[in-house]
Amino acid sequence: MLERDFNAYVNAILSGNRVVLAQAITLAESQRREDITLAHQIISQLLPHTGKSVRIGITGVPGVGKSTFIDTFGTYLTRQSKKVAVLAVDPSSTKTKGSILGDKTRMENLAKNPHAFIRPTATGTALGGVADRTREAMLLCEAAGFDVIIVETVGVGQSETAVRSMVDFFLLLMLAGAGDELQGIKKGIMEMADALVITKADGENIKAATLARANYQHALHLVSVSDSGWKPKVLTSSALENTGVAETWKIITDYVQFVEASGYFQENRHLQNRNWLYESIQTQLLKTIEQSEKIRNNLERFEKEIASGLRLPSEAARQLINEVFQHSI
Amino acid sequence: MLERDFNAYVNAILSGNRVVLAQAITLAESQRREDITLAHQIISQLLPHTGKSVRIGITGVPGVGKSTFIDTFGTYLTRQSKKVAVLAVDPSSTKTKGSILGDKTRMENLAKNPHAFIRPTATGTALGGVADRTREAMLLCEAAGFDVIIVETVGVGQSETAVRSMVDFFLLLMLAGAGDELQGIKKGIMEMADALVITKADGENIKAATLARANYQHALHLVSVSDSGWKPKVLTSSALENTGVAETWKIITDYVQFVEASGYFQENRHLQNRNWLYESIQTQLLKTIEQSEKIRNNLERFEKEIASGLRLPSEAARQLINEVFQHSI
Repeated sequence: MLERDFNAYVNAILSGNRVVLAQAITLAESQRREDITLAHQIISQLLPHTGKSVRIGITGVPGVGKSTFIDTFGTYLTRQSKKVAVLAVDPSSTKTKGSILGDKTRMENLAKNPHAFIRPTATGTALGGVADRTREAMLLCEAAGFDVIIVETVGVGQSETAVRSMVDFFLLLMLAGAGDELQGIKKGIMEMADALVITKADGENIKAATLARANYQHALHLVSVSDSGWKPKVLTSSALENTGVAETWKIITDYVQFVEASGYFQENRHLQNRNWLYESIQTQLLKTIEQSEKIRNNLERFEKEIASGLRLPSEAARQLINEVFQHSI
Repeated sequence: MLERDFNAYVNAILSGNRVVLAQAITLAESQRREDITLAHQIISQLLPHTGKSVRIGITGVPGVGKSTFIDTFGTYLTRQSKKVAVLAVDPSSTKTKGSILGDKTRMENLAKNPHAFIRPTATGTALGGVADRTREAMLLCEAAGFDVIIVETVGVGQSETAVRSMVDFFLLLMLAGAGDELQGIKKGIMEMADALVITKADGENIKAATLARANYQHALHLVSVSDSGWKPKVLTSSALENTGVAETWKIITDYVQFVEASGYFQENRHLQNRNWLYESIQTQLLKTIEQSEKIRNNLERFEKEIASGLRLPSEAARQLINEVFQHSI
């Protein structure tokens, strides 16, 4: 990394320097102990300047038009004088070498927009680590003055829960079409959504999209219950015809107003931070114990024995933990 | 505890001795190290005799008629020559001193049925611990020859996910009535259900229940997707008129046939066991570090600082873990 003391990072980020912002995110993503320490120093110093953005999670299966939607939506926001950062959580990208956001050209307009900042996934990290890093990147972007943070994820893994736990508003993109559109979306994701956008609502697709909207609105009315008291909304959008974009933003601002008035907005952020602490403890504890070769070997053996019905999982866990604390790692 | 070597426990449980079964569950729930070691020895020995039951999770908000449904449903099963065990997961009972199953008279018929075994919640344990203990109790009941294990939980907490992760089939009980019936049910629970039973479908309520059934069937068709490929079913039931009870069991056996044919049944149980290991590691690690007064104090201080926006959660987690491994506990 560049030699630069942490105050230099802090000041550059506060002045909106995007190059330094990107470097600070890279520091946070580093595997080197000193880099992480420095990143934590920087972010800790910046904490009073964080928290002022609207944090939006966006998910949907591949092919739903996520990049196109975010490109159009983000561009719309910059025209409303908003600064927009797009981050991505995609643990699968470690395998597919960056299926998501690996290529900034996926968001052509936003990529060259001076009021937008696009950051691909940190690769080579477990989901837990990715969640830590994305939250940290979010705070850094907020300190750099971004008003809207979009956290993108694919709707096929376990990353949605992680993303839901770090954003204010969760948006699910879907395609119209009877039943098939659900293929690949995991259980529980629909119920996490604060709004559902039926994409590609143009040309011959408009009729199906409008019907899907009505159906989903009805279904969500029945099955959704939210801690916030918010009733999830369903709308249609076409990136091609630029419809449903301003409407999406209107729903989000309505939501923010609603939950700020009720106190849920702050309450939820507090809870999210508290949960972050405990999740981070668990992730890091697991990571630490896995660094011991002996424990890793035992873990592997226990897993096999459990699969063969020869070992009780809670007993295996107890043995492993006794080892952790008997032999210092 | 009684002085009895672990072989005596094993043999008594295998012969279906309910008193010893109950004592073994108490051992597993104990806070004493030696009791837990003994319990783990017993269960490990019994492992080859476990896994043959159908494991059913049942949830629903207070007032939905869970006890009555389980009483009727369990009694029906015993008439089909099934041995039925009812366990409960209710972390809140530590506060409310046993809101659930605290009183066996809640299930009047089942309580005096020689083919049924009712076991209230282990109190005084954290949710993670409760999950470990309930899984262990389930294995013990299976070794004692129970064919159906019902794990009951209230539909208002985080315990549903824990219960979902330990059963083959998840049943959600609901009341008819527009919208209001959802009050108190948490997000995501509906989507975890393999079947939904509208209770109290009798008298003046029949019309509303039938309508609710159609509505939910339609809604679930739209929003539900399942790893198993199973389409969730909705039915109505009246404990008063004994309707929907045989139908519920029919759906469960259909489900078991369906997932056994596809291989999902075994696959899911393997995955559940593997996840149990990792959950148990995390629970026990947290429990271990919380035993250190210094770490507990720091945790408390960090939580406050995080709430005031003065500390970065991932950095706090890192500090705590460094402490754990620097100073042996």
